[in-house]
Amino acid sequence: MGELTIWTLDWVPPGPRGFVRDLRLRWACEEAGLPYAIRTVPFDGRETNHLAQQPFGQVPFLTDGDIEIFESGACLLHIARRSETLLPADPTAQAHTLEWMFAALNSVEMVTLPWWFLSLSGGQDNPMAGWMEGRLGHVERVLGEREWLAGGRFTAADLLMADVLRVDAVRRFGDRPATEAYIERITARPAFAKAHADQLSLYEAADAGRAKAGG
Amino acid sequence: MGELTIWTLDWVPPGPRGFVRDLRLRWACEEAGLPYAIRTVPFDGRETNHLAQQPFGQVPFLTDGDIEIFESGACLLHIARRSETLLPADPTAQAHTLEWMFAALNSVEMVTLPWWFLSLSGGQDNPMAGWMEGRLGHVERVLGEREWLAGGRFTAADLLMADVLRVDAVRRFGDRPATEAYIERITARPAFAKAHADQLSLYEAADAGRAKAGG
Repeated sequence: MGELTIWTLDWVPPGPRGFVRDLRLRWACEEAGLPYAIRTVPFDGRETNHLAQQPFGQVPFLTDGDIEIFESGACLLHIARRSETLLPADPTAQAHTLEWMFAALNSVEMVTLPWWFLSLSGGQDNPMAGWMEGRLGHVERVLGEREWLAGGRFTAADLLMADVLRVDAVRRFGDRPATEAYIERITARPAFAKAHADQLSLYEAADAGRAKAGG
Repeated sequence: MGELTIWTLDWVPPGPRGFVRDLRLRWACEEAGLPYAIRTVPFDGRETNHLAQQPFGQVPFLTDGDIEIFESGACLLHIARRSETLLPADPTAQAHTLEWMFAALNSVEMVTLPWWFLSLSGGQDNPMAGWMEGRLGHVERVLGEREWLAGGRFTAADLLMADVLRVDAVRRFGDRPATEAYIERITARPAFAKAHADQLSLYEAADAGRAKAGG
């Protein structure tokens, strides 16, 4: 096992701060007590400047010694496999952790992210509203019945699902008390607070650097 | 390791036939030479009749002995971990297989599926067209440079990516020769042909059963 390095953008505008997906990986490392380094690629030219590492021009990507991995879900799984805190060893609990990680990305985020995109760019009637209602309703029902998604305790599935659900616009969609309590509970974890604060600090320092360069 | 059972719907209308996602799991089992059984839940009442097994009311789900798993991506990963044909043991090739499985679902399908949904329901100007162009353009560039996504050979990543890309409407989006050749190449595999034919047969037999019950 090599040294973990999480790669992200060297600067982002205020809007996405606290939501850039390197946070999923920082958070996972903090939960697992794994050491990691942060390195950056330039925001300017991001569409093409790291296609060799991330073929869609996105962040984050992860290096583990000489292994390079992209996709936040795949990077999170890679980190989780190093730590039972994130991925239980028990076969049933592990299978359920993995299924809920995929559900967070492919059943929930696959609807919330395009819905959000359309709500920013489109008119009042968001054509994905019905789809949102259905998926988030199912999540609300599940979270009304249990505290954690898999294995009866916190896992990487909760980390990922909470990160998908905590987007402000998504939180304001409908009245979903179990989901809201879940987000509050998961994001109250010290490892989230540390990862979140560290991401904000990086971009505040980058602001200062930009101001200096500009002045 | 238990007996693998793939669960799907007992009937679907003609449109989705050949595209119901149990195909991903049938195909994986065929590639890996793993025995599996097919069982069904009723199409009528599907929104609520199997929420205990699949909390979003979708198919497929998988049982492996007493372990139940939903999400086609998670089920595919579960099957793939049983077979080096699908998931290479080499750490780098394995990490790359996993990253491309996540990419197929969370970077490509997350755009193609909502785009398709909007193109069926909306007007001429699909608000996700630009996003489609970007993501599919990146995929085309990658597939222009290599034959397989990970490890220099066929893996579960190709199975999943090809299944995401082979949707008719998506294939007709733009002129992407490397992608088209890739889809042709991957779906020419005997394991795909078997899985595809078996899914069609199930629903043809169900038509006959329905006609008999109706008559």
